[in-house]
Amino acid sequence: MSELFAKRAADLSGSAIRATFKLLADPEIISFAGGAPSPEVFPKKELAAISEAIFLEKGNLALQYGITEGYDPLREFVKARLVKQGVIGESESVVITTGGQQVIDLITKVLVNDGDVVVVESPSFVGGLNCFRSYNAEMIGVPVDKDGMNLEYLENEVLKKCKVKLLYTIATFQNPTGITMSLEKRKELLELASKYDFYILEDNPYCELRYRGEAVAAIKSMDEEGRVIYAGSFSKTLSPGLRIGFFSARSEILEKMVVCKQVTDVHTPVLNQLICYDFVTKYDYDAHIKKSCDLYGHKSALMLQCMDEYFPSYCDYTRPEGGLFLWCNLPEGFDGDALFKKGVENKVAFVTGSSCMVDQSKKYPCFRLNFSNSSDENIKKGISILADVIKSME
Amino acid sequence: MSELFAKRAADLSGSAIRATFKLLADPEIISFAGGAPSPEVFPKKELAAISEAIFLEKGNLALQYGITEGYDPLREFVKARLVKQGVIGESESVVITTGGQQVIDLITKVLVNDGDVVVVESPSFVGGLNCFRSYNAEMIGVPVDKDGMNLEYLENEVLKKCKVKLLYTIATFQNPTGITMSLEKRKELLELASKYDFYILEDNPYCELRYRGEAVAAIKSMDEEGRVIYAGSFSKTLSPGLRIGFFSARSEILEKMVVCKQVTDVHTPVLNQLICYDFVTKYDYDAHIKKSCDLYGHKSALMLQCMDEYFPSYCDYTRPEGGLFLWCNLPEGFDGDALFKKGVENKVAFVTGSSCMVDQSKKYPCFRLNFSNSSDENIKKGISILADVIKSME
Repeated sequence: MSELFAKRAADLSGSAIRATFKLLADPEIISFAGGAPSPEVFPKKELAAISEAIFLEKGNLALQYGITEGYDPLREFVKARLVKQGVIGESESVVITTGGQQVIDLITKVLVNDGDVVVVESPSFVGGLNCFRSYNAEMIGVPVDKDGMNLEYLENEVLKKCKVKLLYTIATFQNPTGITMSLEKRKELLELASKYDFYILEDNPYCELRYRGEAVAAIKSMDEEGRVIYAGSFSKTLSPGLRIGFFSARSEILEKMVVCKQVTDVHTPVLNQLICYDFVTKYDYDAHIKKSCDLYGHKSALMLQCMDEYFPSYCDYTRPEGGLFLWCNLPEGFDGDALFKKGVENKVAFVTGSSCMVDQSKKYPCFRLNFSNSSDENIKKGISILADVIKSME
Repeated sequence: MSELFAKRAADLSGSAIRATFKLLADPEIISFAGGAPSPEVFPKKELAAISEAIFLEKGNLALQYGITEGYDPLREFVKARLVKQGVIGESESVVITTGGQQVIDLITKVLVNDGDVVVVESPSFVGGLNCFRSYNAEMIGVPVDKDGMNLEYLENEVLKKCKVKLLYTIATFQNPTGITMSLEKRKELLELASKYDFYILEDNPYCELRYRGEAVAAIKSMDEEGRVIYAGSFSKTLSPGLRIGFFSARSEILEKMVVCKQVTDVHTPVLNQLICYDFVTKYDYDAHIKKSCDLYGHKSALMLQCMDEYFPSYCDYTRPEGGLFLWCNLPEGFDGDALFKKGVENKVAFVTGSSCMVDQSKKYPCFRLNFSNSSDENIKKGISILADVIKSME
C-alpha cells in the first residue's frame, strides 16, 4: 500500500488552513483565519444583470468549449491594464487561468524537477508551499524583513550553497505578513536572479488593494532577461468564487504553461471570463476597487487600533499599506499552535505561523490575522478576546 | 536553455487537435474535428433565469471561496444519480472537478511516478494522452477491437512483460472510436487489474448519450477492490464551457486527489456548480439529455447513411450506439495525415488517427469524425467532399 501513491503525493496532506476551516464551522467563532474579500463589496446586482444578458445574447459562446489561453477580449483587457501599470510591455501577452493558484501549479510543473530547489519567503502563502510540496520540490525559506525578503540571507545562506531553480515571492502586501518589498530589494533580487540563474514567480494578487502609501514597481516591470513569471488575479478585487487569474511570462515559458493548462482543465470556464470582462468594461472597475480599498483600509486601521489598545506591548505586528493580512510576532518560545487551540476554545481563530512555514512540524511564536472579512463589531470583540488569550498564556 | 524546463515539460507540445482548431478558423471549413455538443441543445433561456436568480439570492455563496470537494448539494445530486445507475454504493462519495479533464490530471499526479507505465487504448483521447505525457509516464497502447480493448494483447504483450500502474479506458462510446467495451471484457479487465495489481481510470463522459441499444454496467460498479477511479462530466450533457466534471474513488485515493486539486485551482468555480445544480434539479435533466440523444442519434444515423452512400467500400467505420464520434479505418498504407491536409484544402476537417496514438510520429490510415456539432446540410456536404478526397488519393 505504501507504493500506491506517486512519490510527489505520498506525504501530501491537506493544508492546515483547510482543516482550520472545517473546525470553524461553529458559527459563533470569530474568524480572522480566511483570506477572503468582504461580501459587502460583491457587485451582485450588476452580475445578475450581466449573467442574464450573457446567456441570452452570447449563450453559445459562454457554454461551448473555449480556447486554453482564455477569452481574447479579457486577455486584452488585462494586458492593457498591466501595460498601463508598467508591469509588462506591448509585445508581451497574458493568459487567463482558473484562479491565481493555477499559475503556481503550472509554473512549477513546467520548471521544477523532483528535488529542485524552490526558495520561498518565510513565512509564505500556504497554497504556494503546498503546491511546491506536491511536485517534490526542495523548499528553502528565507526570512522576511520589514522591507521584504532578506537578500543577504538569500545570497549567503542559499544561493552560494546550492542551485536554485525558482524563487517564489509575494512582493506586495505579502501573504501572510502584509509586508511590501522595497524597490531597492526588487532590483537587487533581479540582479541575484541573473547572477545565480534562477527564475522568479512574482505572485501579485493584492497589489490593487493599496489603501495607503505609494505603489512600488512590479519586479516584472524591471525584468530584462525574461526571468519573472507574473501572476495576478480577480479573486481579491472582484470575486474568488469565479476563479479568474492570469499570468504573463516570456513566450517560451508562457507557451509551455498553456500546454500544461490544456491537459489540466482545458480552459478556464468561458462564462466566468465573460462575466468578469463585462463587469470590468461595462462598470467602473477602478471605482469598485476603490470601494474595497476604503473598506479594507478602514478595517485594517480598526484592527490595528484594537491591537494597540488590547495587545500586550511585547506583541510585534505589521502595519500593512494594503492587502488582506497582518502578521503578529510574539516573544521567542511562545507556542502559536497552543494559542490557536486556546483561541478557538474562546471562539476566535486565526492562521498559525507554523502553517505558513516550510517546516510545519516546529512551533512558531507568530500568527496571521485577516481583517477584510469581519464586521467592525467582530474585529473589536475578537481582538479583545485574543488579547486576553495571549495574556493568559504568559 | 535546454535545462530551462522540467523533464516532464521539456518535450511537451500543444495537442494536434488544438493546432487543428487554429487552422479551422476559416469559417468555410466544414469541421468534423471537434468534440463539442451541439449548441442547439444549450438551455440558454433557463440558464439566464437561473444565473440571475443565483446572483440575487445566493450571490455571496456564488462569489466567495468554496470548498475544494465541491458544492455539497451538487455532490449529493451526482452521487444519487451514480448510485441509481449502480455505478457507486451509498457509502461512496463524489468530488466535483473543473471538467472531466481534471480527473485525469489529478489521478496521474497522485499515482504515477516518472516512467511508470500507463496503459491506454489505441487509439485514445488526445487530452488523456497529453496528460500522461505531461507526467513523463511511459505509455503503452493496446488495440481496441469491436467490443473494446484487446485483453489478450493487454495480458500477453503488456502485463506479462512489465509492471503497469494505471490503465486508462473510455469504456463506453470511446473517444475516438465510439466503441463500447462488452460486459465480459469489463469483468475480465477487473480480474486482470487484481491479478497484476494495477488501477483503472474509467473515463465515462459519454455514457448518458446512448441513443440505441442497452446500457452496459460501468466497470466501477463491479469493482470490489477499490481499483477503479470513475470520472464523469456535465460537459457533454449540459455544457463544456461551464467546466463541471466529477469523480468517485476509494476514500484514500479520493482524499489525495482533493489535496492535489486544492493546490491546482483551490476549488471549481462556485457559480458554475450552483448553475449546474439548479438546472439539473429545477428542470427535467433526463428530458434534456433525451433531447441531446435524439439529436445526436439522428445526426450519427445521417452521417453513417452518407458514408454508406459516398465512401468507397474499403472504408471500414464504426456504428456507435451513443456518444459523439465514429472512427474510420482505411486500407493499410493510406496516409491519414496527408488525407487531412487534402481535406482541409477542400474545406472539410476531422481528427487524424495519428493524434490519437501513443506514437504520433507514424502515419496511420484512420481518422475520427464528430457528428454532434454540424448541421444536417454540412454533414451531407462534408461527407460527400471527404469521400471524393479519399477516392482522389487511391
